Amino acid sequence: MSAFKSLKEHFQKIDNFAHLSSICGWDAAAMMPTGGNEARSRAMAELSVHVHSLKTQPQLAEWFDKASEQALTTNETAQLREMKRSWLMSNVIPKELVEASSLAGSKCEHAWRTQRADNDWQGFAKNWQSVVALSQEEAQIRAQATGLTPYDAMLDIYEPGTSSESLTHTFDNVKQWLPNLIDQVIDKQAQEKIITPTGTFETNKQKALGLEVMKLLQFDFSHGRLDESVHPFCGGVPTDVRITTRYDENEFMQSLMGIVHETGHARYEQGLPTSLAGNPSGSARSMGIHESQSLFFEMQMGRNASFIQHLSQLAIKHFPEHNVKLFETANLNQLYTRVKKDFIRVDADELTYPAHVILRFEIERDLINGKISYQDVPELWDSKMQSYLGLSTAGNFKNGCMQDIHWTDGSFGYFPSYTLGAMYAAQFMAAMNKTIDVDAVLRSGELTPIFDWLSNNIWSKGSLLSTDELVKQATGETLNADHFKQHLMNRYL
Amino acid sequence: MSAFKSLKEHFQKIDNFAHLSSICGWDAAAMMPTGGNEARSRAMAELSVHVHSLKTQPQLAEWFDKASEQALTTNETAQLREMKRSWLMSNVIPKELVEASSLAGSKCEHAWRTQRADNDWQGFAKNWQSVVALSQEEAQIRAQATGLTPYDAMLDIYEPGTSSESLTHTFDNVKQWLPNLIDQVIDKQAQEKIITPTGTFETNKQKALGLEVMKLLQFDFSHGRLDESVHPFCGGVPTDVRITTRYDENEFMQSLMGIVHETGHARYEQGLPTSLAGNPSGSARSMGIHESQSLFFEMQMGRNASFIQHLSQLAIKHFPEHNVKLFETANLNQLYTRVKKDFIRVDADELTYPAHVILRFEIERDLINGKISYQDVPELWDSKMQSYLGLSTAGNFKNGCMQDIHWTDGSFGYFPSYTLGAMYAAQFMAAMNKTIDVDAVLRSGELTPIFDWLSNNIWSKGSLLSTDELVKQATGETLNADHFKQHLMNRYL
Repeated sequence: MSAFKSLKEHFQKIDNFAHLSSICGWDAAAMMPTGGNEARSRAMAELSVHVHSLKTQPQLAEWFDKASEQALTTNETAQLREMKRSWLMSNVIPKELVEASSLAGSKCEHAWRTQRADNDWQGFAKNWQSVVALSQEEAQIRAQATGLTPYDAMLDIYEPGTSSESLTHTFDNVKQWLPNLIDQVIDKQAQEKIITPTGTFETNKQKALGLEVMKLLQFDFSHGRLDESVHPFCGGVPTDVRITTRYDENEFMQSLMGIVHETGHARYEQGLPTSLAGNPSGSARSMGIHESQSLFFEMQMGRNASFIQHLSQLAIKHFPEHNVKLFETANLNQLYTRVKKDFIRVDADELTYPAHVILRFEIERDLINGKISYQDVPELWDSKMQSYLGLSTAGNFKNGCMQDIHWTDGSFGYFPSYTLGAMYAAQFMAAMNKTIDVDAVLRSGELTPIFDWLSNNIWSKGSLLSTDELVKQATGETLNADHFKQHLMNRYL
Repeated sequence: MSAFKSLKEHFQKIDNFAHLSSICGWDAAAMMPTGGNEARSRAMAELSVHVHSLKTQPQLAEWFDKASEQALTTNETAQLREMKRSWLMSNVIPKELVEASSLAGSKCEHAWRTQRADNDWQGFAKNWQSVVALSQEEAQIRAQATGLTPYDAMLDIYEPGTSSESLTHTFDNVKQWLPNLIDQVIDKQAQEKIITPTGTFETNKQKALGLEVMKLLQFDFSHGRLDESVHPFCGGVPTDVRITTRYDENEFMQSLMGIVHETGHARYEQGLPTSLAGNPSGSARSMGIHESQSLFFEMQMGRNASFIQHLSQLAIKHFPEHNVKLFETANLNQLYTRVKKDFIRVDADELTYPAHVILRFEIERDLINGKISYQDVPELWDSKMQSYLGLSTAGNFKNGCMQDIHWTDGSFGYFPSYTLGAMYAAQFMAAMNKTIDVDAVLRSGELTPIFDWLSNNIWSKGSLLSTDELVKQATGETLNADHFKQHLMNRYL
């Protein structure tokens, strides 16, 4: 058997075990009773050790050497590149550091769950110090292996090919116009009269409504399902995508838009190339591109008035006992595009969200590159919040630098993906509009032309292309944040 | 590390992977959309190969040799015995035969799904011939390894310690009184006036009723859940037991009693000794003992009038729109103890069920021991059905020897467990009645004394004792089918 073929079979084997991990992970979040946790954690840890051992088997190095000398097609070359990337990711960090980071991260995250509620920065900082130090050590090792700066080497885990230099440039530009735009929009919206949801929106009705919206979005129910979990997510495997939501009976809007968002992730997964199933080259390109699909669904389509008219009709059908005025397209549209300066990223609207991300990017970049200390974070957070959103978090750690789970376990480098996703989504919409009258399609409710474009240009490409190539082939240019700016101005001004 | 400790750690590892297999198996039956099947099957096959390789690792033989010379406690000796039993089960059959059997079984079972509907014995027989031949070969190898007859060596997989000689003796005795008893009961019941369920029994109401009955039966919802599947089963792991049922909106009784049955299996699993979790000695003793718990719940408790009064009250509460006379204890009791001679085992009542099992036992025993050919089966089936239940299956293969899935994939030796379970259940009830006024406890609805007895005598023992020891310690004697006979006479005459 050729080295390339041996590698393909080996990565298919790894993917088979990853399949079990995805399904059992979904189960733990959506199905498992509390008492099942201990044995499940042990089983998942065992599986994780096994997958790691498969990824670090000694013969892989030899296979990669030999395969690099084989005559391969373009498609095979991409497969080899992505297998090698996956292999390097797992082999670059010494086992001892992986274990130490995992331990420190678990400890910090676990304690954070109560420390955050107690606004206990001092207690948190004690654990977090180690997490930061170990992440810096990891970043140094990754930097040496890749030739990148320490922070860029962490960014590379989630966004291969994206540099903090280009991100800094992009975000500096956003910072020039965003704070003013936010103020303008808030002033403008202050005049609006809005009817807000009141009364009870029963879970089973919300679910029926959500399922109908998923059908409108052509979610493939023979390859996936909708369930509930405390933190909504998109999991499972491409042939069986599991999305979740959470229902609040006091209102229906958040769960509904959450379903639209997760359906975007799900359709990307369902649309990945089946011919490359089981190979890293057949997976989603990056976290930013994944987020671009959920945000295309949520922001570009979902909060567009032409789409909201369908939500309006469906909501009237499923909640006949409620005041119909609540569900009128104009009212829902206002509700779904409401802008407010606030402390919490996960509750932020489309317009203020980038400010939350830029702040985190700037801090984690300097932290991982060793330019600031973990002790500097609360003060920096406060000063940046004041300058970007006019809010002070002095002494308010729980709604400041302690609000997110990401940093507690060392996931530095992840935050930029959210805003990259928003920018890519706007750029895809601008490109799509050149060949499709998207607004007319959205009004019609027969959305196939939109999904065909996304499938042809994004979903079916898996990881065959680099992010830059993918975006350039789809839109004629690499990342251009002007489309995002234009989209925000069109929608909010 | 001592050999015994190495073995324990190794079997814990195997159990961790088995955990993932159980959860993903439950998921495939209860949650997975159809399109997920192909990738899931591949992942499950990969896991199965991995578990097999863990069970057949060469160093195990050496560890077992060394451990047998270690000084062990009684408890540890039992652990070693059960690990060794599990190891021998996986190592005695050559890999080639395992693969050939698995292939022939899958092929036969798959084709059977349509052949049965078509009553196509000739088509079925072509595939089944290989399944029988390979099972005979497996039985020969197991016989050589254990010193048992070929059929007893297959029986040993499900019922360690039970011989076909003692089964033949027991069943021959049953055959002497059962057919007459059935006729007597049917005559007697012909006079009864019964109200049968009509109208619609909504799934969500049936589910709410089922959950309330599970609470009455003290199912631990922090370690398990109830879902739906085409074929009801009890799966998952002891800390997270997954039971399923299926709802028919035309009636509520079958699903309800199915839930009682599966809750019996579930409480056995939930009650296994946590100190032995992950070791084969901490698992259920045998299929027969497992079935004794589900049948204790279903037959000894569930179809007892003192328990049915609770079902009656709960059914009235959940189906207020239905005629209350349907749910009266006397009526439900009559419905739940109705006897009818019929072709299909899975639909059989408590009284005729043993006839279905004895027939299958006699045929599979002689088939695996090479005394009859697979071609003789339809005629034997017909003649035994005529003699035990007065029904002819001549030419009626689909309701005769082609009705069960068990033989299609070579699961010979399993059928006796059903009736052994019924007999053990009756024996446990007789013993329990010596120290507990079970009827008074059932009437009270506070069933803890019953569950304490089962927990102390059965659940908490895992596989530390042999089946004979377990039953003798619990009841003062080994299997005694007179208790079963007495139970049937008390209930039905």
